[in-house]
Amino acid sequence: MDAAQPLIAAGRRFDARGWVLGTSGNFSAVVSRDPLRLAITRSGTHKGELTPDDILEYGDGVVLRGEGSASAETALHVEIVRARGAGAVMHTHSIWSTLLSHRYAEDGGLAISGYEMLKGLSGIASHEHREWLPILENDQDMPRLATVAAQVLADHPECHGFLLRRHGLYTWGATPAEAVRHVEILEFLLESVARSKETASWRS
Amino acid sequence: MDAAQPLIAAGRRFDARGWVLGTSGNFSAVVSRDPLRLAITRSGTHKGELTPDDILEYGDGVVLRGEGSASAETALHVEIVRARGAGAVMHTHSIWSTLLSHRYAEDGGLAISGYEMLKGLSGIASHEHREWLPILENDQDMPRLATVAAQVLADHPECHGFLLRRHGLYTWGATPAEAVRHVEILEFLLESVARSKETASWRS
Amino acid sequence: MDAAQPLIAAGRRFDARGWVLGTSGNFSAVVSRDPLRLAITRSGTHKGELTPDDILEYGDGVVLRGEGSASAETALHVEIVRARGAGAVMHTHSIWSTLLSHRYAEDGGLAISGYEMLKGLSGIASHEHREWLPILENDQDMPRLATVAAQVLADHPECHGFLLRRHGLYTWGATPAEAVRHVEILEFLLESVARSKETASWRS
Amino acid sequence: MDAAQPLIAAGRRFDARGWVLGTSGNFSAVVSRDPLRLAITRSGTHKGELTPDDILEYGDGVVLRGEGSASAETALHVEIVRARGAGAVMHTHSIWSTLLSHRYAEDGGLAISGYEMLKGLSGIASHEHREWLPILENDQDMPRLATVAAQVLADHPECHGFLLRRHGLYTWGATPAEAVRHVEILEFLLESVARSKETASWRS
Repeated sequence: MDAAQPLIAAGRRFDARGWVLGTSGNFSAVVSRDPLRLAITRSGTHKGELTPDDILEYGDGVVLRGEGSASAETALHVEIVRARGAGAVMHTHSIWSTLLSHRYAEDGGLAISGYEMLKGLSGIASHEHREWLPILENDQDMPRLATVAAQVLADHPECHGFLLRRHGLYTWGATPAEAVRHVEILEFLLESVARSKETASWRS
Repeated sequence: MDAAQPLIAAGRRFDARGWVLGTSGNFSAVVSRDPLRLAITRSGTHKGELTPDDILEYGDGVVLRGEGSASAETALHVEIVRARGAGAVMHTHSIWSTLLSHRYAEDGGLAISGYEMLKGLSGIASHEHREWLPILENDQDMPRLATVAAQVLADHPECHGFLLRRHGLYTWGATPAEAVRHVEILEFLLESVARSKETASWRS
Repeated sequence: MDAAQPLIAAGRRFDARGWVLGTSGNFSAVVSRDPLRLAITRSGTHKGELTPDDILEYGDGVVLRGEGSASAETALHVEIVRARGAGAVMHTHSIWSTLLSHRYAEDGGLAISGYEMLKGLSGIASHEHREWLPILENDQDMPRLATVAAQVLADHPECHGFLLRRHGLYTWGATPAEAVRHVEILEFLLESVARSKETASWRS
Repeated sequence: MDAAQPLIAAGRRFDARGWVLGTSGNFSAVVSRDPLRLAITRSGTHKGELTPDDILEYGDGVVLRGEGSASAETALHVEIVRARGAGAVMHTHSIWSTLLSHRYAEDGGLAISGYEMLKGLSGIASHEHREWLPILENDQDMPRLATVAAQVLADHPECHGFLLRRHGLYTWGATPAEAVRHVEILEFLLESVARSKETASWRS
C-alpha cells in the first residue's frame, strides 16, 4: 500500500524521541473517502519497527486487507477523519503528554499561547494564537470514548488535537506529513509548557 | 545461537535510551526448559555493542558454550525463569529506576496505577490496574539475593518486574520481544511517576 | 549548490537533538557578497530531512534559483550577514531557548559567564568572559523585526547570538561549520543555565 | 594509527549523548611509554565527527605526526598517564558534570556512594564503595592547571576521575575501552546524583 511508507517513517521518527514506547501509539492515513478506507497500524506492533505488513486496510468496520487486528483505537481515527476531513491521524504517547493530560484533566483541557511554534499548526499565522487542547477522560470502552471524542471535536471546531488522560496525544492533518508536523509541534509545546512551570520557582 | 539476535537487538535499543551504560544490564532467553539452558550475555560487555560471541549458553551452573563468564547475576535470571515460566529475562539500569528504587525502598515497592501504558503489560486490560513493583535491597551476595528474589516472586505472583535498590529494573516475558516491551513499558512508567512528582509543586 | 551540503548536514545534526521540530529553524550560507547571494532553506521544510532542492538561492529580495519561498525570516539573515560579515546564519528552536527567552525577556537579555564552553565562541579565550545574549520581542511583522534586530546588533557589537522571545536562537559564524559550533555552544549554555537554576533549592 | 579508531568511536558514542558539543572534549591513548607517545585529538575538532587525520601523535612536547595542534589540554593527559599508568585518557563536557562541578566546588569534590553502577569502575567490587571525585578550579593557565592536577592525583590515589569546575569530567583507563566505560559510569552517576537531589522535596 502506498500509504504505508509515511506511516512507517513516522513511527521511526517518533520512536527516536521516545513517543511510542512499548506498543503504544497508532497511525492511520485515508486511502479513499467514499467508501471510507483507512491504512492503519496493526494492534500490538512496535511503532518504531513497522513493516509494510503491519499496515492494514480497514473499512466498513472490518480489516479488508492484511492479517491481525486494526489498532484498538480505530474508532477514534474514524471519528476524527469524519469530523475534520483529515487525511491522516496520529496518536503518540509521550511522557509530557501523559503528565499534562493528568495535571490539567479537571480543567477539561490546556490553553497554549504565546509560542512561535504555534504557527506550525495548520492555519495559524501568529504566536498570539490561543490553542485549546481538550483533555478527555481515558476509557476502555471504545464506542463510548469515540462518542465523547466526536462531541469534543464538535464543541471545539478549531482545535488541532486532543489529549486522553494519561494516555497521550491525538492529532491529525490533511496529509501524513502534516500530521507528523502537528505531532512534533504539539509535543514540543507540551514539553515547553511543563518545563516552564518549573521556572516559576526560580527567583523572586 | 538463534537466541542471540533478539538479545543483541535489545541491547542496541536500550543503549540508545541510556538504559545500559558502562557494562550495566544483562539479558537472557530460554533455549530449552528440560534441562534448563539459557542464552545469556557475557559478563563485562557493553550491551549496546554485543556480538554473537557475547551470548553464552548456560546450564547446570556452568557455561556450556562460549568463552568468558556468564553475567554475575545469572542466578536471578534462573530464579525468574523458574518462578514465572519466562522465556526471556531483561535487566536494565536507567537513571529513573535507580532513583525511584532508592526513593521508595523503605516502602518495599512502588504502586503504579491509572496509566494507559499499563495495558502493555501481559494480561493487563485496563489503565485502572494497580501494578506493584517490589524493591529489593541491593546485595553483592548473589545466592542470598537470588533467594530473596525467589521469595519476592512468590509473595507477589502478579508482578511484572521488580527493582533492585539503586541497581535498576528486572522484568521478563514469554518471549524476548515481550520482555523488551515490558522494559519499555516499565521504564516509561517509572519516568512518568518521577516527573509527575515534580508537578505537585506547580500551582495551588 | 555547494553551499547546500553543510546546511543539510546541520539540519540532521540539530534534528537529532530536537532543536528543529516541526518546520522550525532556518539556515543560510553566503554564496557571494557583492552582490549579496544567500543559500537559504525553503520555508515549510523539515530541517532534519532537507534535500538539495530545499536550499534556494536568494538575492535582491527574491528567490533567484529553486522553487518555493525562502524562509519567512530571510530578512533577519540578511541583517546579520550585513552587520557581522557572517558567512552563515543559523536559527534553532529548542525547548531551553524558548523557555529562557521568555523567563528573561523583561531583562532584555541574559548574561552567561564562568563556563569553559564559552571558549567555543569565536574570539573568546577564557571562561571568565561574560556573554550577553540579547532577547528580542517576537513579532510577525518581519520588516519591523529586522529593523529591531539591526539595532540590537549595533548596540551589542560583541554578541555571538540573540534570542527571539519564545521563538528560539539566532547565531552565525564565518563559515557554516563555525555557525554550527556556535549553535551547539549556545544551546549547551542555555540548558546549563536553566538546569543550574534548579539547583539553587538543593541544600542550604 | 591503530590508536585512532577507538578514539573516533568514542567520540561518536559521546556525541550521541550530548557530552562533546561544539569542539569540547578531548581523548588520548598511549602509543608507547618509553619514550612517551600519545595519540591525541586535534584541537578545534568536533569529537563526534573525527577522522583519522584528526588524531595526532604527540611526544616530547611537540606534535610528531599529523597537522594542526594537539588538544590545548594535552598537559593534563600527560600528567594523568604518568600518575596513573593509564593507557587512555578521556575528557567529556556534559551538562551534569558542568552543573555539579560548580555546585560542589567549595567542598573540593563530590562523594558518590551506594550505587551499583560504581562497580563498573576498575577495581571496585561493591556498591558500598565511596568514590571521591575531586573538583579543580578551572584555569586557562595550562602548566599551572597540570601542576594542580598532578597534586590532586597524588592526594587522591584511589580516584577514578576528577571534575574541572564548569568544564567537565576527566577520567582514564588501562585501555580506551576502559576509559570509555569510566566515562559512561561517571556520567551516569553524576546525572543520578543531580536528579536525586530534586527528589528531596517530593513528599514529607
